[in-house]
Amino acid sequence: MTQAFSYNLLKQDGLARLGEVLTPRGVIRTPAFMPVGTVATVKALYPDQVKSAGADILLGNTYHLMLRPGAERVARLGGLHKFMRWDGPILTDSGGFQVMSLSTIRKITEEGVAFQSHIDGSKHMLSPERSIEIQCLLGSDIQMQFDECIELPAERKEVERAMQLSLRWAERSKRAFEAQVASGGATNGQALFAIVQGGTDIDLRKRSADALVAMDFPGYAVGGLAVGEGHDAMIATLSETLPHLPTHKPRYLMGVGTPLDLIEAVRRGVDMFDCVMPTRNGRHGYAFTWNGPLNMRNARHAEDLAPLDLVSTCPAAHDYSHAYMHHLIKSGEYLDAMILS
Amino acid sequence: MTQAFSYNLLKQDGLARLGEVLTPRGVIRTPAFMPVGTVATVKALYPDQVKSAGADILLGNTYHLMLRPGAERVARLGGLHKFMRWDGPILTDSGGFQVMSLSTIRKITEEGVAFQSHIDGSKHMLSPERSIEIQCLLGSDIQMQFDECIELPAERKEVERAMQLSLRWAERSKRAFEAQVASGGATNGQALFAIVQGGTDIDLRKRSADALVAMDFPGYAVGGLAVGEGHDAMIATLSETLPHLPTHKPRYLMGVGTPLDLIEAVRRGVDMFDCVMPTRNGRHGYAFTWNGPLNMRNARHAEDLAPLDLVSTCPAAHDYSHAYMHHLIKSGEYLDAMILS
Repeated sequence: MTQAFSYNLLKQDGLARLGEVLTPRGVIRTPAFMPVGTVATVKALYPDQVKSAGADILLGNTYHLMLRPGAERVARLGGLHKFMRWDGPILTDSGGFQVMSLSTIRKITEEGVAFQSHIDGSKHMLSPERSIEIQCLLGSDIQMQFDECIELPAERKEVERAMQLSLRWAERSKRAFEAQVASGGATNGQALFAIVQGGTDIDLRKRSADALVAMDFPGYAVGGLAVGEGHDAMIATLSETLPHLPTHKPRYLMGVGTPLDLIEAVRRGVDMFDCVMPTRNGRHGYAFTWNGPLNMRNARHAEDLAPLDLVSTCPAAHDYSHAYMHHLIKSGEYLDAMILS
Repeated sequence: MTQAFSYNLLKQDGLARLGEVLTPRGVIRTPAFMPVGTVATVKALYPDQVKSAGADILLGNTYHLMLRPGAERVARLGGLHKFMRWDGPILTDSGGFQVMSLSTIRKITEEGVAFQSHIDGSKHMLSPERSIEIQCLLGSDIQMQFDECIELPAERKEVERAMQLSLRWAERSKRAFEAQVASGGATNGQALFAIVQGGTDIDLRKRSADALVAMDFPGYAVGGLAVGEGHDAMIATLSETLPHLPTHKPRYLMGVGTPLDLIEAVRRGVDMFDCVMPTRNGRHGYAFTWNGPLNMRNARHAEDLAPLDLVSTCPAAHDYSHAYMHHLIKSGEYLDAMILS
């Protein structure tokens, strides 16, 4: 029998939590930042670099992977872990967020979302059932319920509609996941997380959280934030939402964020994060350092021989000078992205 | 006093030579392939990967580096080795070849080549004296004479004119280099190589070689090949040119080449090579393997779990499957270039 998925709260400081998520593929030390490996690669990094940067888990995108190389193909090739040479845990999103932001032609119904691929225009359908099926084909350790994530600001009525739909999809996602476990498509070492929605409306957030907690998921995400509402509104919403989530299960703030966002959220009791920012910034010549953010395109770096960041434990931060990084980004070189990511 | 530059012929098999070039920065085992680090980075590779791939020396491009970041800037930053974190020997070309192929507006005179930068249109001048000055500012261990390299096929008269001009530029390059040594801009551990020109005309090649050998350079390159004349003409020209070069000095075939080209040239007594092909191919999804060349875009790789090449000693060849590489190149991912380069 597979080891069951579980969470241990090891220590608390105010609301901030030190803990660990136990999975058959290894321990995730929390608070945890999950690098985003969109299409089965964390951009510009070798898998062993992702690990040595301190990542216990990474994230794959259901939307991208279902379109290319395709979930059935990944399954035939032995699953996502083997495909991309990552033996630690992987979390996959449900595809709900990206089908909204990336596919140009789409139609939302109670059933799910019909859409055309942004790559080749081919027609696809994502529903709670298909999303879970795909996540099981990929072999994801932590799966996410299918939800509808809307842009903010939005009318309260619209936020409520999407929140209610996401609750019904949560229920269907859970049944689909349980059916996968029953049929051998997943194990009880894998977990399905629910996603609290409701925009910046505290009442809607509470109702979403209460309903999802009643369904008893092994972990809870706060979704639909960092989508245009601003830092203060995000933190305020988070502060009011987290108290409605159980303390003995992991909490995951989706798509966040900057170093400040991370610290503010950890202070309020968040355990898990994902964001493309570190690698996307790296590809564009930006770096977070202990001396603050740097834009390596800036001419003041052109003759600065100092290493990027002497406080950091990352080899890349010690090995290369500001001047060299400035030159690489100006020249559009791969090595810039490789080092700054 | 700095250790002088020298060449040891260790073993001969037919015309093929096993040897070593001794420089103050280390030994270059020959035959040697020099990866091209155009703008102070071998594209998509970390410096330690270049070394562990077996490279004892790499090549930097004078034309690119003089334009960005600029030779004087590199000198202020401590030289090219320190700038790009490569402590082994570096060979720089003279800029002659690339000023012809890359700058759109240029004028050749006896003095040198006036041209506009392909990056920003700024005006520059390359002459034998300025080329050597730049190569000394970069701190190059093996420098190349300034020459004129023309495209083939060309009229004999034109080939002869360029060859004769290159001989006069060789003389000026040599005087400029000796002046640098005398003034402390270079040491006798650094070396200046001459470049034999003359197209595919055996008589011109012989005259070029004889004149350059009389000038007594520490190494000789065969230039102006692999520029459109075809494999057979290249090998034929090489076969007729090499006997005119001294056996106690290294011979360098510039800009070559494919695995077959390398083997054919080594058989005829060439010691050194450079080519962008391995890394350029890698960025475009092509790989040389012991089973022949592979185009990773080909659909037949999509579900092939076999490693790229089990015979190769390169970790990248063992670690990743055909299927994964096919996916990465189709997705336009950095990791494709990083692995295949």
